[in-house]
Amino acid sequence: MTSGAPRSARGTERRAEILRAALEVIAERGYRGASLAAVAERVALTPQGLLHHFPTKEALLVAVLAERDQWDAVPGTGWRLELLGQLVEYNAMRPGIVQTFSALLGESVTEGHPARGFFTQRYEAVRANMAQVLRTEYGERLPSGLTPERAAPLLVAVMDGLQYQWLLAPESVDMPAAFRDFLTLLGEG
Amino acid sequence: MTSGAPRSARGTERRAEILRAALEVIAERGYRGASLAAVAERVALTPQGLLHHFPTKEALLVAVLAERDQWDAVPGTGWRLELLGQLVEYNAMRPGIVQTFSALLGESVTEGHPARGFFTQRYEAVRANMAQVLRTEYGERLPSGLTPERAAPLLVAVMDGLQYQWLLAPESVDMPAAFRDFLTLLGEG
Repeated sequence: MTSGAPRSARGTERRAEILRAALEVIAERGYRGASLAAVAERVALTPQGLLHHFPTKEALLVAVLAERDQWDAVPGTGWRLELLGQLVEYNAMRPGIVQTFSALLGESVTEGHPARGFFTQRYEAVRANMAQVLRTEYGERLPSGLTPERAAPLLVAVMDGLQYQWLLAPESVDMPAAFRDFLTLLGEG
Repeated sequence: MTSGAPRSARGTERRAEILRAALEVIAERGYRGASLAAVAERVALTPQGLLHHFPTKEALLVAVLAERDQWDAVPGTGWRLELLGQLVEYNAMRPGIVQTFSALLGESVTEGHPARGFFTQRYEAVRANMAQVLRTEYGERLPSGLTPERAAPLLVAVMDGLQYQWLLAPESVDMPAAFRDFLTLLGEG
């Protein structure tokens, strides 16, 4: 168990099962289609039974995104810059979860949104880890003279910003190619 | 009059007044506080009277964002790269409209959202215009070797992506400074 209050082994297993089901529903039906009712049905729970584990749709989606971060190891250590290009390629094959991330990120910047804390903490952690990735690659200065800490928010911003353009016009925007162009920019100088 | 069906002078004036009021309400209360009722009150219309001009909150907000694009001249011609840095500085002083833009962009990537068409067309136009700005600055190749068309989506992505990070943690993220760092990256090579 990684965080939070102690859970029974049964509860932990059930929770993991719900998150896997939610990820499937998101992949099949996208952000709007991923209702609590649809997820409950997939794991043979009543809607009321699902609410016991996740009180709101937002809570369930935040848990799915946190779980994805763990699988992707972002934020995480041991990343190399080259692997980030592969992560973006992988993301281009799973529009459902990218859409869910992007929609929830958009909502989270509004007042009092339940996902605001998750995203705020996530970005603090992701910026710190991307700075570490850049330090491993380039040392204390990138070829452009930027420090890893100053380049990290740009790296994260490009990943997020390209996702919106790609989700709106997947035929016009080659997200993995554009991200590799940015990695080239970082390495120039 | 710039677009759409003919309107009476009176109707056009009323519409402009509503958009100004909406912008004020957004600045004061943010995305969630910008209800149709609050905007109607500000222009001394009944909610029903406002619906005559804008049938939904989304339609009103899209009109506000389109109007802002016109004032900012984005998408537009005649921009220089240096002025984009000033635009980002200006945006850092108006979190309400940036929040509204970012929240609505997030929603727009979901299925059948009423703002999807607006954002899809906007990004096509903004990418084309940013490519033109880059061409004016650098000619057919940037110092990194990228063409203006390949650098344009990155420029747009950084602007959007930084807005999310800044809205979530305005004390941690210096949006204008980060954007200037990106302009430096573009000019390196």
